[in-house]
Amino acid sequence: MTLINGFQINTSLIDQLTLELEEIVVVFDHQLRGEHDAINELCGRIEEYRGKMLRPTLVLLSGLVVPGGCLNNGHRVAAAVVEMIHMATLVHDDVLDEAEVRRRGRTINGLHGNEMAVMLGDYLISNAFHLCSTLGKPWVSLELGLITNTLCEGELIQLFNRNNTKLDQETYMTIVEKKTASLIGASCRLGSLLSGAEEMDAGRLGRFGMKAGVAFQITDDVLDLTGEQDVVGKSVGRDLDKGKLTLPMILGLRNATPETRESIIRMIGSRDLVGLRGLLKEVGGVQEALVMASNLVSEAKGELEYLPESPAKDMLCTLADGILDRKF
Amino acid sequence: MTLINGFQINTSLIDQLTLELEEIVVVFDHQLRGEHDAINELCGRIEEYRGKMLRPTLVLLSGLVVPGGCLNNGHRVAAAVVEMIHMATLVHDDVLDEAEVRRRGRTINGLHGNEMAVMLGDYLISNAFHLCSTLGKPWVSLELGLITNTLCEGELIQLFNRNNTKLDQETYMTIVEKKTASLIGASCRLGSLLSGAEEMDAGRLGRFGMKAGVAFQITDDVLDLTGEQDVVGKSVGRDLDKGKLTLPMILGLRNATPETRESIIRMIGSRDLVGLRGLLKEVGGVQEALVMASNLVSEAKGELEYLPESPAKDMLCTLADGILDRKF
Repeated sequence: MTLINGFQINTSLIDQLTLELEEIVVVFDHQLRGEHDAINELCGRIEEYRGKMLRPTLVLLSGLVVPGGCLNNGHRVAAAVVEMIHMATLVHDDVLDEAEVRRRGRTINGLHGNEMAVMLGDYLISNAFHLCSTLGKPWVSLELGLITNTLCEGELIQLFNRNNTKLDQETYMTIVEKKTASLIGASCRLGSLLSGAEEMDAGRLGRFGMKAGVAFQITDDVLDLTGEQDVVGKSVGRDLDKGKLTLPMILGLRNATPETRESIIRMIGSRDLVGLRGLLKEVGGVQEALVMASNLVSEAKGELEYLPESPAKDMLCTLADGILDRKF
Repeated sequence: MTLINGFQINTSLIDQLTLELEEIVVVFDHQLRGEHDAINELCGRIEEYRGKMLRPTLVLLSGLVVPGGCLNNGHRVAAAVVEMIHMATLVHDDVLDEAEVRRRGRTINGLHGNEMAVMLGDYLISNAFHLCSTLGKPWVSLELGLITNTLCEGELIQLFNRNNTKLDQETYMTIVEKKTASLIGASCRLGSLLSGAEEMDAGRLGRFGMKAGVAFQITDDVLDLTGEQDVVGKSVGRDLDKGKLTLPMILGLRNATPETRESIIRMIGSRDLVGLRGLLKEVGGVQEALVMASNLVSEAKGELEYLPESPAKDMLCTLADGILDRKF
C-alpha cells in the first residue's frame, strides 16, 4: 500500500474504494460539524440513514473508469455532496411518508417530530450546496442545481398522482427518472468529468447511471411490495400506504381481466398488502417489472461497452447486476 | 422616463424600484416555470406568500447606495434568489408551525398537506441555488450557501429550545441573528458587492441589514404577542402556541417578581395569550423589547453614516425607521 498525495495507489480496487469512502465520510462529517453541540448531536443521528454509499461509490468508480481516470479531491467533495443530497431526501421522505422504521433504526421524524426532520433536511440541502460551492468549479454547482430541481419535480409529480389508479407507465417512468435516476446518473457523470472525461464518455456514464437508477427504483418498488420487513430493514408496504402506484401495480392493472382489475383497485383502496401481493403475482405484474429491470441493467452495462477494460468497469457491471439480486 | 440597457434612469427612485421589482418577479417566475402544468400551478400559489419584497428591495437599494453604485442583471438575479430562499422558509415554516392563516390566505400546507409543503419548499431552495449558479459568480453561491447554513442553524436552535422557559437573551439573539437577520444582512451585503462596493462599505451594509433584521424580528415577536389577527394578516399567538419564547417574554420573566414570574410561566404553559399579554405589559417586557428594537434601528442607520447622501440612503433609513411603526 503506497500513499502519494494522499491517494492510495498500487493496491486493489476494493481497498482503494474503502479508503476513499472513509475519506468521504470525513469530508461529510466535517462539513456538518459546527459550534452548536445540539446540532452536532442531531447530525450524528444522520449516520443511521447511511446505507451502502452507492452514490459516492459511483462517483469514484466513474472517475476511475474513463481513459486515464485518476481520483482527486474533487471526487471526494462531489461524492460527499451527492450523499448529502440523498440523505436530505431520506430525511424529508420520512416527513412525507411517516415511516417508522428505516434502516432498522428509528427515524429522525420518530425521534424528534416532523418539524425537526424538515429543518434537518434543509440543513443537509444547504450544506450540500455550500460544500459544492467550495469546489471552485461553478459548472458542478450548475449541474447539481439542475439535478435537484429535477429530483423535486419527480417528488411533486408523484405527490400529484397519489391514489391515481390510472397512473400510466410513461408517467411512472418520468417520476422514477426524475426522483431517483437523475441523481444516480449525475453521480456517474460528475465522477467522470472530474477525471477530465470527454463529453462522450461522460454521456455514457450518465446514461449508465440513469438506466441503472431506474432499475434500482423498480426493484425497490418490488421489494416494498413483496419483501419481508425483517429482511428489507425498513417498513414495507409504504408505497401502498401512501397511495403510490408502482410499476408492478401498473403492469398488473394493465394485464388483468376487467374483473381482476376491479379487485386490484379495491385492494389498493383498502391498503390490503397481502391480497395485492397475491393478485399481482398471479397476473404477472411483479415478474414483468423484474424483466424490465433486468433489461435496463443490460442496457446500462451496454453503455460501458466502449470504455477500456479495467477493474473499475468490472465493478460497475457487478454493481449493476447486483440491483437484480437485491433482497434489501 | 428613459430606458438604457433595460435599466431606467433619470426618474425617481420609487419608480425605478417599482420597475426593478417587477423584473425580479419575472426572473423569479421564469426560474420556477417548467414543463409540468401541475407544478406551475402549485408555484402560482406561492404568490400568496409574497409580501413586501423587503429582501429584494434591500438588494437593490444596497446596490445603489454605495459610491458609483449602478444596478445590473446580477442584482435582479440575486434579489430573486434571496426572495426564493425567504419564501422557502415561509413554506417550510407552515409545516413547522401548522399555521392556518398567513397573509390573509390559506397556506400551502392547508391546501395540500404537509408533504406538498415540504416538497414545494425543497423545490424553492433547489431553484434558488440553481438560479444563483447561473450568475457565473461562484463567490455569491459560496456566501449564500453559508447564509442558508446559518439560517437552518437558527431554526434548529430555536426548535431545541422549544418550551424552554429558561431561554436567555443571549441565546434568543443568536437564534434571531441566524434565522432572520443573516439573510437580510446578506441581501444588503450582496447588493453592494454586485455594484462593486469596497469590502468596507459591503461590511457596513451587511451590519445595517443584520441590525435592522434583528429589530424586524423583535417587532415581529411583539406583534405576534400583542397584535390583532385582523390587522396583522396572519395568525397571532403562534410563537406561544409553539412554545417559542420571544424577547418580550424573556425580558418579562427577568423583570418580574418571583411570584409574577411563576404566573408568566404558568400562562406560557397553558398558552394563555390574553393573560400573558396583560402581565408582560405590566412588567414592561413588551416596552423594553421595543426600546431594544429602537436602539438597533439607530445603530443600523449609524452604519450608513459614512456613505454619501443619496435618495437610496434616505430610503434605507426610512425602511429602518418603518420597522418601529409596524402594525403588520
